[in-house]
Amino acid sequence: MPSSASSQQHTTISPLTTFLILCGFLLALFPSLFVAVTWAPYHYLFPSVKETTPSSVYCSAPNICTAPQQPSMSWFQKQFTLPSKSRGSYLITDTIVRELPELKDYKVGILHLFIQHTSCALSLNENWDTDVRADMSDALDRIVPEDHKGGVYRHDAEGPDDMPAHVKSALVGASVTVPITNGRLATGTWQGIWYLEFRAARHSRRVVATIQGEKN
Amino acid sequence: MPSSASSQQHTTISPLTTFLILCGFLLALFPSLFVAVTWAPYHYLFPSVKETTPSSVYCSAPNICTAPQQPSMSWFQKQFTLPSKSRGSYLITDTIVRELPELKDYKVGILHLFIQHTSCALSLNENWDTDVRADMSDALDRIVPEDHKGGVYRHDAEGPDDMPAHVKSALVGASVTVPITNGRLATGTWQGIWYLEFRAARHSRRVVATIQGEKN
Amino acid sequence: MPSSASSQQHTTISPLTTFLILCGFLLALFPSLFVAVTWAPYHYLFPSVKETTPSSVYCSAPNICTAPQQPSMSWFQKQFTLPSKSRGSYLITDTIVRELPELKDYKVGILHLFIQHTSCALSLNENWDTDVRADMSDALDRIVPEDHKGGVYRHDAEGPDDMPAHVKSALVGASVTVPITNGRLATGTWQGIWYLEFRAARHSRRVVATIQGEKN
Repeated sequence: MPSSASSQQHTTISPLTTFLILCGFLLALFPSLFVAVTWAPYHYLFPSVKETTPSSVYCSAPNICTAPQQPSMSWFQKQFTLPSKSRGSYLITDTIVRELPELKDYKVGILHLFIQHTSCALSLNENWDTDVRADMSDALDRIVPEDHKGGVYRHDAEGPDDMPAHVKSALVGASVTVPITNGRLATGTWQGIWYLEFRAARHSRRVVATIQGEKN
Repeated sequence: MPSSASSQQHTTISPLTTFLILCGFLLALFPSLFVAVTWAPYHYLFPSVKETTPSSVYCSAPNICTAPQQPSMSWFQKQFTLPSKSRGSYLITDTIVRELPELKDYKVGILHLFIQHTSCALSLNENWDTDVRADMSDALDRIVPEDHKGGVYRHDAEGPDDMPAHVKSALVGASVTVPITNGRLATGTWQGIWYLEFRAARHSRRVVATIQGEKN
Repeated sequence: MPSSASSQQHTTISPLTTFLILCGFLLALFPSLFVAVTWAPYHYLFPSVKETTPSSVYCSAPNICTAPQQPSMSWFQKQFTLPSKSRGSYLITDTIVRELPELKDYKVGILHLFIQHTSCALSLNENWDTDVRADMSDALDRIVPEDHKGGVYRHDAEGPDDMPAHVKSALVGASVTVPITNGRLATGTWQGIWYLEFRAARHSRRVVATIQGEKN
């Protein structure tokens, strides 16, 4: 092209320059190609390098990168107080679900409920017939009876209902764990979360709820 | 170089052009150098910017990037039905391990087993002598006896074995959690997973198994 | 510029070359612009592509990339042996906290303690009055009495205290789970971790401690 002197004044690009500038554009548009060619001998000599980086980021272009899909693990913790109650068994599934709207966000997980006291308990049991709750408290009283004559329990300064309450708490347990499936507690049809108060007098009990799992 | 008019017609690249094209190649091959120089004043003025991005991706070249090594956390959940049984204590370790081949993939974790019913239970106990299982069911019957005369339990419409079954379920519990170590349940030598059926009649019980942990 | 023949010998850069080299620099400095323009038709035709990559890496420059902030999930597991004890209830909160300095690193999480034996138990109960511990062991003896006349338990080869120990273990449980909040166990004021030994003779018991949670 640069044959005549007149045209040369305006277009000074020789075939080599054109080639080099084209190379520049190719580099800019397909940097991976050039980088791959440049690093090829190195990767050939040290083939394990790439395989030992399992979490490498995939870049379709210099600044359009995608990290490997990480499931979004998440923890959530909240403390709250249960409505104060005296001796009895209480169904608290609705209270728990109302206090924890965050449950809806978990595709799969576990809800851990922990009562911070030693004379009451959390359990899972029948969610329909209130008679079951009344029978449960009575049955536990028969298993761990109060001592009104004295001599059975050393620890009696806090009342005859205190030491039996500690024993019942050890038997039933201070925590329950419930699986979460698609934003809901995976409890059975007849299963509900129970709060069992073992002290005769009204008490306010604190619960620590910990949700862990994989979010949607 | 471009001294004679004849050579100039073919090589129009002046020293400046050569320098600029070389710069282009340098940029394409070592973009980090140029970017580093360009952003140096900014990073000097706002030194905290880089430090507040702990999870920054390391790129050895424009499109060869590595994300920080994330331990591969994982959740797995499955529901299945236990072989139907009538009153008794049953060792189900083998059933559980057979249903959950995924356990092998977890380096460290926890298996949570949850039975979706309120008149049976899951427990961990002796895995050798079948007499222990028979004695256990009998011992629980003595702790929470059935009432055949009437008057002890309000909730008696579902048979004399139903309310005692609910009490036993509260005592033993609806779930067990077992640590996982190197793909195996970290149970002790004599420890097995038990399913305790408290109802006299044969029942099919659903279990929700949730595995969580760090994969290999 | 390239008007005189003398100056042309030194500066052979035509306006077009200057433009192209400038383009090269623009590309090198703002690659995202060029890439964005190049890929615009594609993204217009397949608009969902970008939205389906939620964990994409953000690159402010070709090799200054930041991965999305991942909470640093972590698992920790350790086995240790409890001080050997004969029948009784023992407060082991201090032992546990001393064995697990790693607890301090967890902002939110759960501690899972698992005893690998079937004739002892872990529980949460009163942490102040030693009388409560003595009363607990006695109360459990009344609930699951030993049989010294024979005929009550089939499994009696390991001594009269063995089968009652298995029953107590089923009632109280082999594991406890305690929430972790800001590096501390979120136990209540009067709550402590108990190890209950049900065998009369001295035993050394192994515990598997699993901590899981979100680190600071």
